[in-house]
Amino acid sequence: MYKLTLVLWWCAILVQGSYQPNWDSLDTRPLPPWFGEAKIGIFLHWGVFSVPSFQSEWFWADWRGNTSDLINQYMESNYPPGFTYQEFAKDFTAEFFNATQWAEIFARAGARYVVLTSKHHEGFTMWPSEYSFNWNSKDIGPHRDVVGELGVEIKNFGLKFGVYHSLYEWFNPMYLADKRNHFATQDFVVNKIIPEMKELVLNYKPSVIWSDGDWEANDTYWKSTEFLAWLYNESPVKDEVVVNDRWGIGIPCHHGDFINCQDRYNPGQLQKKKWENAMTVDKHSWGFRRNAILSDYLTPLELLTVLARTISCGGNLLINVGPSKEGIINPIFEERLLQLGDWLEINGEGIYGTQHWTAQNDSVNSNVWYTQKDNFVYAISLEWPQDGNMVLGSVTDIFKNADTAVSLLGNSGKLKWTLSSNKVEIQLPDRVTVKSETAWVLKIKT
Amino acid sequence: MYKLTLVLWWCAILVQGSYQPNWDSLDTRPLPPWFGEAKIGIFLHWGVFSVPSFQSEWFWADWRGNTSDLINQYMESNYPPGFTYQEFAKDFTAEFFNATQWAEIFARAGARYVVLTSKHHEGFTMWPSEYSFNWNSKDIGPHRDVVGELGVEIKNFGLKFGVYHSLYEWFNPMYLADKRNHFATQDFVVNKIIPEMKELVLNYKPSVIWSDGDWEANDTYWKSTEFLAWLYNESPVKDEVVVNDRWGIGIPCHHGDFINCQDRYNPGQLQKKKWENAMTVDKHSWGFRRNAILSDYLTPLELLTVLARTISCGGNLLINVGPSKEGIINPIFEERLLQLGDWLEINGEGIYGTQHWTAQNDSVNSNVWYTQKDNFVYAISLEWPQDGNMVLGSVTDIFKNADTAVSLLGNSGKLKWTLSSNKVEIQLPDRVTVKSETAWVLKIKT
Amino acid sequence: MYKLTLVLWWCAILVQGSYQPNWDSLDTRPLPPWFGEAKIGIFLHWGVFSVPSFQSEWFWADWRGNTSDLINQYMESNYPPGFTYQEFAKDFTAEFFNATQWAEIFARAGARYVVLTSKHHEGFTMWPSEYSFNWNSKDIGPHRDVVGELGVEIKNFGLKFGVYHSLYEWFNPMYLADKRNHFATQDFVVNKIIPEMKELVLNYKPSVIWSDGDWEANDTYWKSTEFLAWLYNESPVKDEVVVNDRWGIGIPCHHGDFINCQDRYNPGQLQKKKWENAMTVDKHSWGFRRNAILSDYLTPLELLTVLARTISCGGNLLINVGPSKEGIINPIFEERLLQLGDWLEINGEGIYGTQHWTAQNDSVNSNVWYTQKDNFVYAISLEWPQDGNMVLGSVTDIFKNADTAVSLLGNSGKLKWTLSSNKVEIQLPDRVTVKSETAWVLKIKT
Amino acid sequence: MYKLTLVLWWCAILVQGSYQPNWDSLDTRPLPPWFGEAKIGIFLHWGVFSVPSFQSEWFWADWRGNTSDLINQYMESNYPPGFTYQEFAKDFTAEFFNATQWAEIFARAGARYVVLTSKHHEGFTMWPSEYSFNWNSKDIGPHRDVVGELGVEIKNFGLKFGVYHSLYEWFNPMYLADKRNHFATQDFVVNKIIPEMKELVLNYKPSVIWSDGDWEANDTYWKSTEFLAWLYNESPVKDEVVVNDRWGIGIPCHHGDFINCQDRYNPGQLQKKKWENAMTVDKHSWGFRRNAILSDYLTPLELLTVLARTISCGGNLLINVGPSKEGIINPIFEERLLQLGDWLEINGEGIYGTQHWTAQNDSVNSNVWYTQKDNFVYAISLEWPQDGNMVLGSVTDIFKNADTAVSLLGNSGKLKWTLSSNKVEIQLPDRVTVKSETAWVLKIKT
Repeated sequence: MYKLTLVLWWCAILVQGSYQPNWDSLDTRPLPPWFGEAKIGIFLHWGVFSVPSFQSEWFWADWRGNTSDLINQYMESNYPPGFTYQEFAKDFTAEFFNATQWAEIFARAGARYVVLTSKHHEGFTMWPSEYSFNWNSKDIGPHRDVVGELGVEIKNFGLKFGVYHSLYEWFNPMYLADKRNHFATQDFVVNKIIPEMKELVLNYKPSVIWSDGDWEANDTYWKSTEFLAWLYNESPVKDEVVVNDRWGIGIPCHHGDFINCQDRYNPGQLQKKKWENAMTVDKHSWGFRRNAILSDYLTPLELLTVLARTISCGGNLLINVGPSKEGIINPIFEERLLQLGDWLEINGEGIYGTQHWTAQNDSVNSNVWYTQKDNFVYAISLEWPQDGNMVLGSVTDIFKNADTAVSLLGNSGKLKWTLSSNKVEIQLPDRVTVKSETAWVLKIKT
Repeated sequence: MYKLTLVLWWCAILVQGSYQPNWDSLDTRPLPPWFGEAKIGIFLHWGVFSVPSFQSEWFWADWRGNTSDLINQYMESNYPPGFTYQEFAKDFTAEFFNATQWAEIFARAGARYVVLTSKHHEGFTMWPSEYSFNWNSKDIGPHRDVVGELGVEIKNFGLKFGVYHSLYEWFNPMYLADKRNHFATQDFVVNKIIPEMKELVLNYKPSVIWSDGDWEANDTYWKSTEFLAWLYNESPVKDEVVVNDRWGIGIPCHHGDFINCQDRYNPGQLQKKKWENAMTVDKHSWGFRRNAILSDYLTPLELLTVLARTISCGGNLLINVGPSKEGIINPIFEERLLQLGDWLEINGEGIYGTQHWTAQNDSVNSNVWYTQKDNFVYAISLEWPQDGNMVLGSVTDIFKNADTAVSLLGNSGKLKWTLSSNKVEIQLPDRVTVKSETAWVLKIKT
Repeated sequence: MYKLTLVLWWCAILVQGSYQPNWDSLDTRPLPPWFGEAKIGIFLHWGVFSVPSFQSEWFWADWRGNTSDLINQYMESNYPPGFTYQEFAKDFTAEFFNATQWAEIFARAGARYVVLTSKHHEGFTMWPSEYSFNWNSKDIGPHRDVVGELGVEIKNFGLKFGVYHSLYEWFNPMYLADKRNHFATQDFVVNKIIPEMKELVLNYKPSVIWSDGDWEANDTYWKSTEFLAWLYNESPVKDEVVVNDRWGIGIPCHHGDFINCQDRYNPGQLQKKKWENAMTVDKHSWGFRRNAILSDYLTPLELLTVLARTISCGGNLLINVGPSKEGIINPIFEERLLQLGDWLEINGEGIYGTQHWTAQNDSVNSNVWYTQKDNFVYAISLEWPQDGNMVLGSVTDIFKNADTAVSLLGNSGKLKWTLSSNKVEIQLPDRVTVKSETAWVLKIKT
Repeated sequence: MYKLTLVLWWCAILVQGSYQPNWDSLDTRPLPPWFGEAKIGIFLHWGVFSVPSFQSEWFWADWRGNTSDLINQYMESNYPPGFTYQEFAKDFTAEFFNATQWAEIFARAGARYVVLTSKHHEGFTMWPSEYSFNWNSKDIGPHRDVVGELGVEIKNFGLKFGVYHSLYEWFNPMYLADKRNHFATQDFVVNKIIPEMKELVLNYKPSVIWSDGDWEANDTYWKSTEFLAWLYNESPVKDEVVVNDRWGIGIPCHHGDFINCQDRYNPGQLQKKKWENAMTVDKHSWGFRRNAILSDYLTPLELLTVLARTISCGGNLLINVGPSKEGIINPIFEERLLQLGDWLEINGEGIYGTQHWTAQNDSVNSNVWYTQKDNFVYAISLEWPQDGNMVLGSVTDIFKNADTAVSLLGNSGKLKWTLSSNKVEIQLPDRVTVKSETAWVLKIKT
């Protein structure tokens, strides 16, 4: 299946020739197959905001915008008057940042790609950019090329490496000048954003460019289509790169190799375009919060619930965790990721490389979500029935064939089932013999 | 049962009169009943060592003693030459320390007492001691009376509050002078330790004094028996205070209201004296380590295994977690504690207020440990049998009575059982209907 | 005299029309008269280099270029490995910076203009430049608009305000990219330098632009003539601004409203162009050095010696002092400046508004230097003759008129004199009655 | 003269036997001759107060006592809420402290002894005291034995080394407890002060103990007489040590080897006991103030005026300068000291080893002060008479001998004089030939 897709994609490329800098042309580009197969990515929000590590990665904007009493109080209680956000950068020490250790965690979590905030709205570049003098991770704070170090290790572990990149920068005066001009000028884009994105692409060859911060201006201001044409036609990653949809007012949900629409987008039904659900393990923040408590984190069940619903509807899941300023993936994040990895070890067959099935959510059992691959339908159930009998509605047609084989991933042996008018009842094995603890996947031969 | 113990204890007190400052007399003191009932405590290691938060709370000694390459490397990489341990104190910010929040976690964990390092071997007092000028939590770092704040809240939540206290201080020149004199002088004890301990007792009325750092000198040097006689006879906590056994060379394992012997003491068999297993959730450190990873922490099963073995053999379990310098109980610790609390919510009946039974560990099923209370024996099993039949050896005598009732905590309904020559087989309920996930308690009527 | 010069200057302007962006045209601009009259300016080197405040304002370049063992040793002894220059910026506190207090000192020193490093080679702008995001005195360190605050107060005290500005920035990647291209590209100049200089001029209306850091590239790279044409033709300071000569390879000593040639330029003879001697009170550094000792500072006599020689040869004297990171003009600097002010209070008549005379240095008395104004010649003597008789050679022609009146500034009464073949001997008043202590000025009617 | 005094002093010692711990006995001790001869000492106030370096060395008391709006404002503007004085200690870096360099300055200043604040009222010991755990210059801040390093170098340069020592400590709880007990208890004195002072004496062998901070308690509380008896009878410095008078309520001005009475004591007339004028070059503070301005410092004339008046009345002059937290003697201090040294180079003959004369201040010329040595009277004049004739009243008897020889120090040649009824007029040499610029000493043969 994967091979066929790949061949088709290459053919498309050959037929296509080169892309024009307009959406009609760009939209013709087929999705590089790896992305549809990958299903699960890790999102990392790391930056100067990881120093206050308070409230969220929007700390600076919320503080300066005076929209958060908590932040005001935090600053007043803990810092001298006049302290500026820029002065946090020095304490972004990253002394424990170990890219190998991180990559290993993400690989064990079952992720197939990792997306790092190469630059968030604060403008701090996590690599020694030529276009961000004294406001980057080499010049101040970590004293390291974070994008570079992580990229190498992610690839070493066989995962794809992607970069989040914010187009706008809250307080960059070059941007604010263009904004004051109602975006009639493009100094910021021409002199900063485009060279910076090309530098990123050329130096680190990312497989994902996860654009953000587009919403105040049109794509023409951002020169999005020009950039994407270059990316698709000429860049060293033209064959495998994928980009999301945040490229200017009106673009999200409509263009891009895949769409994110809003944060934590999870529509619960099939989408026309390839999409991705970018969501957070800390329910309230993308950046690490030092004072988050256990109940702020998704439980394993909550995480698997989001996963099932997302994958079944054709989405990828981009799971965000925020490293600390010291460079630590908090053990609670590590645990959630490894729990997921353990689950995928057993059940990954029903996730990776699958496609949506005719039904997404079961017609009688709302806890069950479907995928398919080759000649199998996979039913992901988020609940173990009290009586041990799993009732399903959407699959009755399959079971009209009396030989239909059904098994539970991670268990050997075929399961007994009985079909009635509008549902099938599948008798699950003794729970004690089942490895998975939180969600279960039935594999049904079609 | 509890009331009877209490009455007996009061009688003993009345008969006794006052204690003499010698072990023979002190050893006659009956254990205040609350401690035997409580079973589960939380241990907190918090201090200046929480600032480097690296390797362990022995950071200072290991660094100055030059025994750790990792520490040397850490200091060389991250601090200027000449930096001293004392200079960490300023960064012990504790800005998120919220005693109410902590107490709530510990209460929800099912703990009945909480012991805080009021002063570790570094000598930094976590209260504004009159005897530790400029080296205490009010003068530098938190700017707060940590012992005071936490004590109040722990008591508000109905738990007992205890203080860990180190007799020796690695680098206190007053102590080192006595030591150079082969402890022929006692300036440190007379002018520092005794007044400091009395200050602690009088100001904070702790229910536990958890002594440590005794091992370089005899109890005569430490004036331990004098102090304890005062504590038992005159102090405001004389009725309920309990102390451990670290009061000088040769004392541990022999004297004190309860014994700790070594760290993580867990003998696996009944002890003559009341004992306590002080152990850590981070397997490698008592103080918080910023760079600890998930596998450094005990799993829920490992924690319950230690619990079962400890309680069955008559011990209390003192579970240590290390708060961060900011005052955060890391969510991974919070999770382990709340998982324990959830388990105790269901199974606490077999833990709290129990006593050891005739057998501790089952004779045929090494995964099962026993307690008893009133007319019941409780069998704590750390494994769910694959066939759903729990096999026990030590309880066959009870089951010779054909009416013997047995149930599973957290489940309604009596369980079926069959007795053969040397074992009984108890048929467990369907696992799906069982609340507990990690360990299970059978309640057997005697 | 002054009025006449002014009228001539305005006529020249009217005749001239507008300047072309080439040196031939720019060189036709007459010097705004105020600068020739002013004679004495204060130079201030203040920036992030004032934080290490060690060795000199070239700290960053010397450190990174590894050319100074002292700097290497200083950093190794006092900072953690990896510490960067950018991280000094946070400690540029300026908490005592009081522009009024500074301006008052400079006014009392007798200065007529003040030139501040608005941006040194480090690139840190001392105003909130739109072109130096997060590397300016508002965003980090002082949290203030230093150029703005000082400019206002300097003008309030009736002095002219000027700005030093470095064209090149040692480590700005935008500049380094142009440099790698052998200055075939001008991104740095177009996007940073020109807008930044215009911002400076438009916002702060400086009367002096003291350019520096030009020496690696030609004036065509720097677009110097274009900038100057704009400055002379269109800028709000076109009538009174003066610029020095550092505008590209080959320009210094040849073009500009006045020339500086090298640092501490003091040729000892008349120059064709108006020139300025920019020199330092700390003999070894322009920036403040915390560890400078008394012998590093010029004595009052040394300072007056430089003054006499400079003014006599038609130069202005730009006296540099380096404020501390806290915003303090060290009292030793304040003392030197006020000593100069006291001297000028008495002797300023022979300095301000004067012109060079036919002779600069006396032909027989090398300690005497000349100026002239209206109908007087002023002889500045750096030594008091032991016998009280001042011997002069160059003025014998004047004294051929037997009525020639000569007096000592600060003293009333005419002095007796005798003329011999090639010298005149002037009998000085009793030293006790003379106010000036270090150098003396004879006023000779011509 | 010096030798004779020394012999007499030794005889007195031999006759005396040992001192009793009461003032009657202690008062019989003859003053070690060196102190009377020395005349000029340097006082150094250096400590944690040198970190804020604001207002004065009483910063802590004024801040906590809430008596200074300036301090409150300074702290509010520059530090986070809750910041404590103890947290300044870390920034007491002393990176430029060079005891050799300091000692050289003091020697060149003409000082014969140097007194350092070994411990000010803040309690911070400038040596690694056994009695000040974690609140001393080795444990925190400089990481050095300041008393030790300076003592060695001061002695190397042939000067006497002394230590200032504060008995009381504003915030030491041990002291405050005694104080609450109305000094009925002496824990602080017994356990801290006496051992600490003996440690100082035994380790550093100071020639001066300059006691302070005595005023809240009686000398019996401080055990002053016991300490002094030990110091005079047994200590290693018993032969040469001198102590001042601050040893308890009612003692100052009455007991001690010499008296200081108040700060800046300068009575203008002869005193019965040997005394010392401890005064400051910064008129407003003993500790360094970063924001002091030139007019806060004594001028050279003001300093010599104090010197003349003090020495003439039999006092020693102890000139205070405050080093910076970095370990720098500010150049303005260095200049005042070297100016004094230059003056003493010329005029020291009339200062060192002199005694008071019959008159102290001239009867007709209030600018003139007298000393005597061997067969000479020295008249120190603070003003140069406009007509070059020095008029004196108190010396007329000497000049009744027509052969009386009078000269000016630093000048060769005898001066002419004329005697009238009640005054003598001495014709000074031509001012131009005189080296001294600020004050002049006439040497009159008796």
